[in-house]
Amino acid sequence: MAKSSVKVVFTPSGKRGDFPHGASLLSAARQLGVDLDSVCGGRGLCGRCQVLPMAGAFPKHRLESSPAHLSPFSKAEAPYEERKGRLAPGRRLGCHALLQGDLVIDVPPESQAHRQVIRKEAADVRDFTLAPNLRLCAIEVAQPQLAEPSGDLQRVCQALRQEWGLEATSVHPALLARLQETLREGKWFVTAAVDEGGQLRWLWPGLKEALYGMAIDLGSTTVAGHLCNLASGEVVASASLMNPQIRFGEDLMSRVSYLMMHPEETGELTRVVREALNGLVAEAAQQAGIEAADILEGTLVANPIMHHLCLGLSPVHLGSAPFALATGEALTLPAAALELAVNPAASVYVLPCIAGHVGADAAGMALAEAPHKSDDLTLLVDVGTNAEILLGNRERLLACSSPTGPAFEGAEISCGQRAAPGAIERVRIDRQTLEARFKVIGTDAWSDEPGFSAEATGLCGSGIIEAIAEMFLTGIVSAEGVIQGSLASRTDRLVQQGRTWAYALHPGQPPLLVTQQDVRQIQLAKAALYAGVKLLLARFGAERPARIRLAGAFGSHLDGARALALGLVPDCPLDQVASAGNAAGTGALMALLNREARAEIEAAVQRIEKIETATEPDFQAQFVAAMNFPHSQDPFPQLFAHFPKPPAPAAKPPKRKPR
Amino acid sequence: MAKSSVKVVFTPSGKRGDFPHGASLLSAARQLGVDLDSVCGGRGLCGRCQVLPMAGAFPKHRLESSPAHLSPFSKAEAPYEERKGRLAPGRRLGCHALLQGDLVIDVPPESQAHRQVIRKEAADVRDFTLAPNLRLCAIEVAQPQLAEPSGDLQRVCQALRQEWGLEATSVHPALLARLQETLREGKWFVTAAVDEGGQLRWLWPGLKEALYGMAIDLGSTTVAGHLCNLASGEVVASASLMNPQIRFGEDLMSRVSYLMMHPEETGELTRVVREALNGLVAEAAQQAGIEAADILEGTLVANPIMHHLCLGLSPVHLGSAPFALATGEALTLPAAALELAVNPAASVYVLPCIAGHVGADAAGMALAEAPHKSDDLTLLVDVGTNAEILLGNRERLLACSSPTGPAFEGAEISCGQRAAPGAIERVRIDRQTLEARFKVIGTDAWSDEPGFSAEATGLCGSGIIEAIAEMFLTGIVSAEGVIQGSLASRTDRLVQQGRTWAYALHPGQPPLLVTQQDVRQIQLAKAALYAGVKLLLARFGAERPARIRLAGAFGSHLDGARALALGLVPDCPLDQVASAGNAAGTGALMALLNREARAEIEAAVQRIEKIETATEPDFQAQFVAAMNFPHSQDPFPQLFAHFPKPPAPAAKPPKRKPR
Repeated sequence: MAKSSVKVVFTPSGKRGDFPHGASLLSAARQLGVDLDSVCGGRGLCGRCQVLPMAGAFPKHRLESSPAHLSPFSKAEAPYEERKGRLAPGRRLGCHALLQGDLVIDVPPESQAHRQVIRKEAADVRDFTLAPNLRLCAIEVAQPQLAEPSGDLQRVCQALRQEWGLEATSVHPALLARLQETLREGKWFVTAAVDEGGQLRWLWPGLKEALYGMAIDLGSTTVAGHLCNLASGEVVASASLMNPQIRFGEDLMSRVSYLMMHPEETGELTRVVREALNGLVAEAAQQAGIEAADILEGTLVANPIMHHLCLGLSPVHLGSAPFALATGEALTLPAAALELAVNPAASVYVLPCIAGHVGADAAGMALAEAPHKSDDLTLLVDVGTNAEILLGNRERLLACSSPTGPAFEGAEISCGQRAAPGAIERVRIDRQTLEARFKVIGTDAWSDEPGFSAEATGLCGSGIIEAIAEMFLTGIVSAEGVIQGSLASRTDRLVQQGRTWAYALHPGQPPLLVTQQDVRQIQLAKAALYAGVKLLLARFGAERPARIRLAGAFGSHLDGARALALGLVPDCPLDQVASAGNAAGTGALMALLNREARAEIEAAVQRIEKIETATEPDFQAQFVAAMNFPHSQDPFPQLFAHFPKPPAPAAKPPKRKPR
Repeated sequence: MAKSSVKVVFTPSGKRGDFPHGASLLSAARQLGVDLDSVCGGRGLCGRCQVLPMAGAFPKHRLESSPAHLSPFSKAEAPYEERKGRLAPGRRLGCHALLQGDLVIDVPPESQAHRQVIRKEAADVRDFTLAPNLRLCAIEVAQPQLAEPSGDLQRVCQALRQEWGLEATSVHPALLARLQETLREGKWFVTAAVDEGGQLRWLWPGLKEALYGMAIDLGSTTVAGHLCNLASGEVVASASLMNPQIRFGEDLMSRVSYLMMHPEETGELTRVVREALNGLVAEAAQQAGIEAADILEGTLVANPIMHHLCLGLSPVHLGSAPFALATGEALTLPAAALELAVNPAASVYVLPCIAGHVGADAAGMALAEAPHKSDDLTLLVDVGTNAEILLGNRERLLACSSPTGPAFEGAEISCGQRAAPGAIERVRIDRQTLEARFKVIGTDAWSDEPGFSAEATGLCGSGIIEAIAEMFLTGIVSAEGVIQGSLASRTDRLVQQGRTWAYALHPGQPPLLVTQQDVRQIQLAKAALYAGVKLLLARFGAERPARIRLAGAFGSHLDGARALALGLVPDCPLDQVASAGNAAGTGALMALLNREARAEIEAAVQRIEKIETATEPDFQAQFVAAMNFPHSQDPFPQLFAHFPKPPAPAAKPPKRKPR
């Protein structure tokens, strides 16, 4: 006779309990609070609750486990195998395998509903729990009967209520016209996507096991996105393309200027950017081998100007004081309102903007880096045409933007160019010989290494920063920013240009020169950035941040030590200065995969104190004071501890993708 | 020195009280619970709170009233006059006229916010309180400031909160792109439309004093609508046009049959009906001299087939058992989802359908006639291709549809035609001479009156009913429905056709004949209707209804006495049989003007017991039993009390508009 009670241990959680003979593994898991997924509601259809019964003696748990301690593959379990034929070897369906003896059961990670989403590409970005805004629920819908004159939709809602305890309070209008056909095509077995607001968004005939979302970072120069499986949290494709608006102006402000003169063109810029988003979506869907119609959710971050253009709002008011946003609120919009070619019932969550020059991209960065949850005073910097600066901790959070201009992006620099193949991105200058070596985008070797054959076409943002930092560290440029013509006796790389000098980073025809004017542009930009940071530090009442994160394409490729060397950011322990990667995009991804992240960032943005540099009386003084490069003693003690002797080249600089 | 307290009496409410010297009339009215309207929130801008101070001695109230007992036209009051220049003579703005002495104040009806909506055209339809889903709120929006980096939308919401205590929780996506321009065009003084769900729907520059809604009754043959001022409840235009789908089939079932054979044409039928709705909207807007963009709300009633076609759903499943609706739920849809050319932020409320053959039109009829609020057992009948039948009272409500076929609409009748100019709509036959006289649509005179010159082209629904009723009452047709050839000796209007006879209603070339086959068609139709009613009565456990309302075009023009005479409906005191007019359209209007009516009809429809005649074992027997015309004793005692002698012609039959 069978034992009336059996012991069960779930791994890896270690949760254990005694259960009646004949209980299902799914019900045991639910009673113990073991997170075991299901789309079909325990009806043996979806295979999400697959578990692995273990064989052997488990002395620690004092039990002998065997897969034979489960009911045999039953008739109830058969439909799943017939339908799908892909129960992994050794595995059972938790909902239909019944306990008949002591057992250790392993729940594989992919069978957990609220699994952790681990972002490998940016190790210091928070992991988070998968909790998207939409869930899939397979249902058997009652067929219409003469005696019971209910509508198809009513019976869909009944099934959701009965099988899932879900109350669908509305239906997406776009689904209406597909309802009848889908139910009949699926022979009344369908999978519903229901959002957290209780809206029935879509139906698919039969069992649908994956639905997708797209997290989009709409940048000034690049449009990038991650396509995610909302059920697994997996990023199934990442794509990026150039922002086609570049033809209306290389940097953002020139696009705004263009629109000030041609306000009738706003619609055209909107059309172009939306077209780009659709190109991105199509590219990602193709990479992943899915239909764009399976994308039901999107999130969007952008700087304020791109944010406005994408929403069909005029950005011209952002171009002059008082820099008023049309709307900075977080918005949930129908994807159709943005003309996105995805599922017609899709919606897009637009992260909130912080202020007129501190956009939803900065909010995304804040969400990813979570200064509002940190005890450490954190400085976040995203550099574009304006630097977006956040400073704070869990007590208090401040934000401002600083008019760095486009020099950090390589614009207004004599040999500047966009970060693209051929651009010099890293520079080292020998302390003794004053000879330079460099690395260009798209080539792994340094210019003095064997096999280097690339043609250097210009300097991108990180290239010009590193070049000037190295020129300063080698004494070619003084603390005041003057290129020292007196060193011409030591190297023929110094070239006289009227009353000033230039440094030939790459002799050639024509040579790539860093001119005195280039140094001035970078001084202006870094002074603006530094003054903004100082302003926030003063407001916060702090001397220096405990950690610094440099976000965006610029931050990703900037060497922290050289950023400190030039005084881009205040002094900080070097090991606390790091790139945040594409933090804005990561924030968009988090908001896509975890609905609570949306409330979190909205609350954080509400709390942020917005500082307008233009009206701060101290800003100009700070700006002027920050023009010089740091002296060795003050205010950067950390810095010159780091550069007593020429540093070794970085072991393996991250490979840059063109953005 | 001024009196410290003054007496105020508001008319017509008679509410009175003592108020401090210097209090505003609006605040006094609010304290007394006098309903005084405002769009501008008491800021002297909208003129909604206009009141008329009275002059003279009011002995009943023991006070001497004078307009001079108010503060003089003040600076505060001036902006309104400057802006609008239309304070009616003698009137003051309640918000800015301050009490300085005893006063009688008249509140004119148009200054009441929740005024009663009185429907003159259908005297027995419930009056109701104006409480639309949208309200207008004028606001002064703070201008953007450098020091306070808020978005335009955020400041709009602030103004709504501060001035109106309204929390706008979302914004309509279509408004976003118009936001900036509207605020600047209105110089930061704008009027907002906010719906009950807290969505900011639209903004207009400056003061906007009216917004509009459209209540649409989408019938099989006619599309009709009322355009209403949502602020006043006034119907500013009513329009109707032929349903252009008629080209796909005269009656509904032939349209469904067409789609069964050509399912790919569903989209085309949808397109055509939506085009018709837009034609209706344009016509109504033009009549009223308003922009269609000022229409922000709509309501829709329709029979199930038109309901589905309008929503883009296939009606083919309604054409065969089990007659399943795709959705019968009440729906609130973006007007854009129905391609309605109104304001892009408009929404449309679709009343619920009751069952597969009992549509939103029946729900509208129920809302207008409110059997669910009545102590009397009420029978509501709307006759189309199917008769929609409701029976009940506040305790219990039943519904069914009965397959009357299109005979009552004049189809399948040898000389039948649609109700259009030229159609015979009323008939009287002399009891002695058996001569007929009639009235045709579009002409006031009867055919035997001087000045009658119209050409009768056929018989419409009410014409054929009256003709056969009169033929029965004069003995030309027997209770079994046989045209009595034996009477050919008394009149040459009886014409032999093979083995049966016909009656020439209008001798001519060719004559308009009522044939034996016509009588049979009407017998079938009336038997179906009567059997459906009997079924509901049996279910209810009642012998007969206390009142009968005949709705729709058919009901409007049917003579109650003759409907009883033919046994269309069960016996009932004649004075309790009445037309409900276009009750479905009235229901749509109520749902437009009073949001609580929506919850009311949804709750009522939930409670309705749906009876499917096709599965009722008694139905066929009842149907066969109802084929005969009523005998004098049983079951219609009321009837033959009414027809002891030939009745006088109706004094002045209502003039019919072509539908």
